[in-house]
Amino acid sequence: MTEPLDAFVSEGLSAVRLRLLVAYDGTDFCGWARQPGLRSVQGMLEEAIVTALRLDSIRAVCAGRTDAGVHARGQVVHVDIPVSSWDVVAPVALRRLNGLLAADVRVLSVEPAAPGFDARWSALRRHYRYQVSDGVGDPLRRTTCAHHVDPLDVDRMNVASQWLLGEHDFASFCREREGTSSVRTLQRFDWVRDDDGVVTAHVTADAFCHSMVRSLVGALLPVGDGRRAIDWPAQLLAARMRDAAVTVAPARGLVLQAVDYPDDALLADQARVARRWRGAPQDNPITQGSA
Amino acid sequence: MTEPLDAFVSEGLSAVRLRLLVAYDGTDFCGWARQPGLRSVQGMLEEAIVTALRLDSIRAVCAGRTDAGVHARGQVVHVDIPVSSWDVVAPVALRRLNGLLAADVRVLSVEPAAPGFDARWSALRRHYRYQVSDGVGDPLRRTTCAHHVDPLDVDRMNVASQWLLGEHDFASFCREREGTSSVRTLQRFDWVRDDDGVVTAHVTADAFCHSMVRSLVGALLPVGDGRRAIDWPAQLLAARMRDAAVTVAPARGLVLQAVDYPDDALLADQARVARRWRGAPQDNPITQGSA
Repeated sequence: MTEPLDAFVSEGLSAVRLRLLVAYDGTDFCGWARQPGLRSVQGMLEEAIVTALRLDSIRAVCAGRTDAGVHARGQVVHVDIPVSSWDVVAPVALRRLNGLLAADVRVLSVEPAAPGFDARWSALRRHYRYQVSDGVGDPLRRTTCAHHVDPLDVDRMNVASQWLLGEHDFASFCREREGTSSVRTLQRFDWVRDDDGVVTAHVTADAFCHSMVRSLVGALLPVGDGRRAIDWPAQLLAARMRDAAVTVAPARGLVLQAVDYPDDALLADQARVARRWRGAPQDNPITQGSA
Repeated sequence: MTEPLDAFVSEGLSAVRLRLLVAYDGTDFCGWARQPGLRSVQGMLEEAIVTALRLDSIRAVCAGRTDAGVHARGQVVHVDIPVSSWDVVAPVALRRLNGLLAADVRVLSVEPAAPGFDARWSALRRHYRYQVSDGVGDPLRRTTCAHHVDPLDVDRMNVASQWLLGEHDFASFCREREGTSSVRTLQRFDWVRDDDGVVTAHVTADAFCHSMVRSLVGALLPVGDGRRAIDWPAQLLAARMRDAAVTVAPARGLVLQAVDYPDDALLADQARVARRWRGAPQDNPITQGSA
């Protein structure tokens, strides 16, 4: 499997890699990834790009492969297309794409990417937000906020979360995947209650394994309501294996807020390092798997 | 038609008036008011109260009769029930009501009201919020935010809105209703753009006629995008009659945020004054009509 950019070049076409910023309400999607017969963000976006730019087919690669029901405000995506197609459509691309997409997906920006940019592998870190209500709930936030019956002690959750920060093998909070590393660097994990009583977790890491944010949240909620000891999440981490007692928190509370990239000059280097570190093949930038 | 409280008393029952704070996502409702065969907030709430308190029937009266698709975070409601029913269920009433209601309606609190309290007529003022996006839109806010294609100049809208403040006959912004006054006191009407680019109007008045907030917003949007002169809304106001050029802005942007009441000692006086002022019969506190 060759890089799409190379594929265009081998056909004698000049290619351009586009970088898109995408937001979506994940409620009615089977997730980011295209699945036969299901409504996926990737599928809808690829279809809109193909139509808007009059192409045969393209492949969209994202920074964070969100699961069914998970939302995004700052998903980053790249697609490779012939330069000739882009030149024609550039001035109207954003409006045309949003005209083709359903209201639950919006392209916030689309522009040619800097050389070496890869939406998945060039990313330095991902920022997620998880919201949960322990009151009666706000019906106007119910698609983006999970519900927890028992009252949550945010201070307690903050103490327990800090013990998970840093570089660790997060196998206890990941769905197993053969031949890939579950070592990640958790850079931020804290909780705050807003004026409406909704509790928000901010979770940042270089990258996340599959279900990692929701598993971390699932381990912290029973600390917050007092059912588990404050050091339980740290004990789970140390065990380095999944524990059936950890519930994966509901998808609807989770939003991919933003993805950070290095300065343009370092994009290609970052992609090389990330691939090596997380055990991905060096010759295939669009390998499947979570980021 | 007698007051419900009197009705119970005439049957030899002691009655208590309950005050409820209610939030709802208006998307899937025909509005607050019960309508045959349609899903209304009033209907769903009355049904839940009747079931939770094991009553035959009750009638819920609200502070602001929201239209189809309009939301509420702070709707205030009263219902009259026999004291004996309340005494039994009081400690579990909130949990039981929310267990019976669909997820798009939540009762935030329920408690016996102070003497003289009337959800509609004792209210001093209503606070509404209207949100509109002039960018590509945030899919996670699309049920509570309208969309405007052309860019909005918030400063211009603020100047135009200030000219509408004060006590006026708002007939130009009301759907006509025989025999009632359209004189209202607009206390706040300003616009602010948040970090996500969403434009929010805060609109406060002693009371609103039918469609008044959405008509005011509908008159300001074409000022914001430059299609109308900055003094157009003030000219409409002065004309004191509906102008077909004013569009009623979409329901989904509108939220009833809060309702203010006077100190307990003044509740009955306020109700008397409001009824006289807005032309409602003095002997019927549950008369139909907008507030």
